[in-house]
Amino acid sequence: MFSITVRDHIMIAHSFRGEVFGPAQRLHGATYVVDATFRRADLDADNIVVDIGLATRELGAVLADLNYRNLDDEPAIGRVNTSTEFLAKVIADRLADRVHAGALGEAARGLSGLTVTLHESHVASAGYERSL
Amino acid sequence: MFSITVRDHIMIAHSFRGEVFGPAQRLHGATYVVDATFRRADLDADNIVVDIGLATRELGAVLADLNYRNLDDEPAIGRVNTSTEFLAKVIADRLADRVHAGALGEAARGLSGLTVTLHESHVASAGYERSL
Amino acid sequence: MFSITVRDHIMIAHSFRGEVFGPAQRLHGATYVVDATFRRADLDADNIVVDIGLATRELGAVLADLNYRNLDDEPAIGRVNTSTEFLAKVIADRLADRVHAGALGEAARGLSGLTVTLHESHVASAGYERSL
Amino acid sequence: MFSITVRDHIMIAHSFRGEVFGPAQRLHGATYVVDATFRRADLDADNIVVDIGLATRELGAVLADLNYRNLDDEPAIGRVNTSTEFLAKVIADRLADRVHAGALGEAARGLSGLTVTLHESHVASAGYERSL
Amino acid sequence: MFSITVRDHIMIAHSFRGEVFGPAQRLHGATYVVDATFRRADLDADNIVVDIGLATRELGAVLADLNYRNLDDEPAIGRVNTSTEFLAKVIADRLADRVHAGALGEAARGLSGLTVTLHESHVASAGYERSL
Amino acid sequence: MFSITVRDHIMIAHSFRGEVFGPAQRLHGATYVVDATFRRADLDADNIVVDIGLATRELGAVLADLNYRNLDDEPAIGRVNTSTEFLAKVIADRLADRVHAGALGEAARGLSGLTVTLHESHVASAGYERSL
Repeated sequence: MFSITVRDHIMIAHSFRGEVFGPAQRLHGATYVVDATFRRADLDADNIVVDIGLATRELGAVLADLNYRNLDDEPAIGRVNTSTEFLAKVIADRLADRVHAGALGEAARGLSGLTVTLHESHVASAGYERSL
Repeated sequence: MFSITVRDHIMIAHSFRGEVFGPAQRLHGATYVVDATFRRADLDADNIVVDIGLATRELGAVLADLNYRNLDDEPAIGRVNTSTEFLAKVIADRLADRVHAGALGEAARGLSGLTVTLHESHVASAGYERSL
Repeated sequence: MFSITVRDHIMIAHSFRGEVFGPAQRLHGATYVVDATFRRADLDADNIVVDIGLATRELGAVLADLNYRNLDDEPAIGRVNTSTEFLAKVIADRLADRVHAGALGEAARGLSGLTVTLHESHVASAGYERSL
Repeated sequence: MFSITVRDHIMIAHSFRGEVFGPAQRLHGATYVVDATFRRADLDADNIVVDIGLATRELGAVLADLNYRNLDDEPAIGRVNTSTEFLAKVIADRLADRVHAGALGEAARGLSGLTVTLHESHVASAGYERSL
Repeated sequence: MFSITVRDHIMIAHSFRGEVFGPAQRLHGATYVVDATFRRADLDADNIVVDIGLATRELGAVLADLNYRNLDDEPAIGRVNTSTEFLAKVIADRLADRVHAGALGEAARGLSGLTVTLHESHVASAGYERSL
Repeated sequence: MFSITVRDHIMIAHSFRGEVFGPAQRLHGATYVVDATFRRADLDADNIVVDIGLATRELGAVLADLNYRNLDDEPAIGRVNTSTEFLAKVIADRLADRVHAGALGEAARGLSGLTVTLHESHVASAGYERSL
């Protein structure tokens, strides 16, 4: 199984609901350094997993819709706790939609899976893995 | 599949038995930077994998029993070679016991798996992965 | 010249005023991984720069006053742009006050300088360096 | 499942064929920081996954055949695009051959899998995973 | 003294002349992860060291002239050994020229110094520090 | 001012004397990832700061005398607290002796300074800087 990983980041504000979150119930924020990993069993005709330029561009486009925002005000995602692991799924699903729509190139239809990992500090990260 | 990872560290002394270990047969030591990854298929009612505060506290509690010690003197683990990969299993199994005992919260009973990785230098690490 | 560095982090929300900040004028947030470096010409009677336990505790105490907050609402610092470099100075000056007040131990009065560095993503950081 | 990972690096020149590669069609180069991960279900008689000294030596030997070279001139691999993911497979397969030939010790015959990851910058990496 | 640091990277081919370089006399290559640090004694009217957007853009522009190239063929720099430390100076001097030409904004004329560090692997880096 | 940095590591056991050290008074251990930075104002005839091969070899030789040992048993250094900052000075001074003895090459006599930094975990490091 082959894979490639590209990295970008977002800086957002949000708050959490529920005693389990302690002081994180207050409005605060985070930098998420985001790794998107694309997997497939065999390489394409160019001997690659996916065009790394398109993968980087599409990850950037997905992140641009979240970046420099207060997620509490985003109706598409703000009604639930926007935990790191939940955001990993939001980003992974939006990337999967773009793969299926052809935005990462025709050859990218041969991708079999996708993992998104968000590093929120030097001591914590979260991720979501799915098939394509 | 969702996951979260928390990080802590221990600083221990130990020695190894067997020619394969070369100069590491002498009493020496290591810092292990420890990553514990918790996995589950679906998020809990708070939209998280596990309470990250409890996960951090329980990892710290497991590590406190090993930290600042000469592992050669620890009867529970010192009779075998306390290799990095073996210590990863010791820590993972003790964390699993705490999950099963409810120390990471009731919702943590929905966790499906656990991986512990120990980084022993900038060029070597080891890990152990298990189900819950 | 000797030095030691300890690391911790904060997660805050804030916004900026001024066209130079582009989309960062919106309410957003950041994780700052904070390194505090203490310097002195000679080691103390314990053969150390400063008690690393106290240095870690006092850095944590300084950061606790900023952590999980919207800095726009903090009267002590929120009336100016809370840029990364400005926050580095806020943290360094508060640490210096604690050194001078004896919170890092009597021997810490021999410290000659202090640098605080805030890592805000995998591609950007800022710092402030001062004497003690 | 247990694992250990060892790290080394190579510095190579190469060029790519195909419009998808843009400016990387020109002769350029890369540092690849290479992680080789070895996996097995149970530890060997020494309580380890594999002799880390032999694993490091054999990874170094495989990399020495690629290091400080223009891959376009290497007949064994230069006729295709030597993408990061393709090189991960080349290195993994050569390591697997060495495992099967006994170069990592007799006990290494109990290894069940191998992953090679190449980090090419702070924002991109690629990997190849296989069984043994 | 305040500072900010921005990061980008280049991937180049080159070779060295001189026995001291051993196998690096062959045509090979490197990824350089480049950190540019800007320093000044006081913050500007926006409470920052320099516009981080402009700093990132101008670092990118300087690197674009080197990226995806065989440095042996670049007449402006290829007649000497393009060591990591020498390239750090090339990049720092070109950034300094852009600061002086106003490309980082009028306020950037208040910058007092600049350091460029090139990370060439997980075990080696080089840098050049200058005043402005 | 130019610089190059090379990295290696050691794994040692030791204990501390003094209440300030808390549980670290027990026999324990550490991995120190060691960075040695060499500085000079102008490059040598090969356009480098120092032969990176020799710098790496000599750092390795200095570290070999400490590696895989219980520092409490080393008469040359064990009678004081072998704190991270103290060990940084031990290593820096031994490297300086080797520079002065010509072990890093004749051109290395032009070096003006040296910094040694020891990373002992993901949250702590210490260093020593001196002239040559």
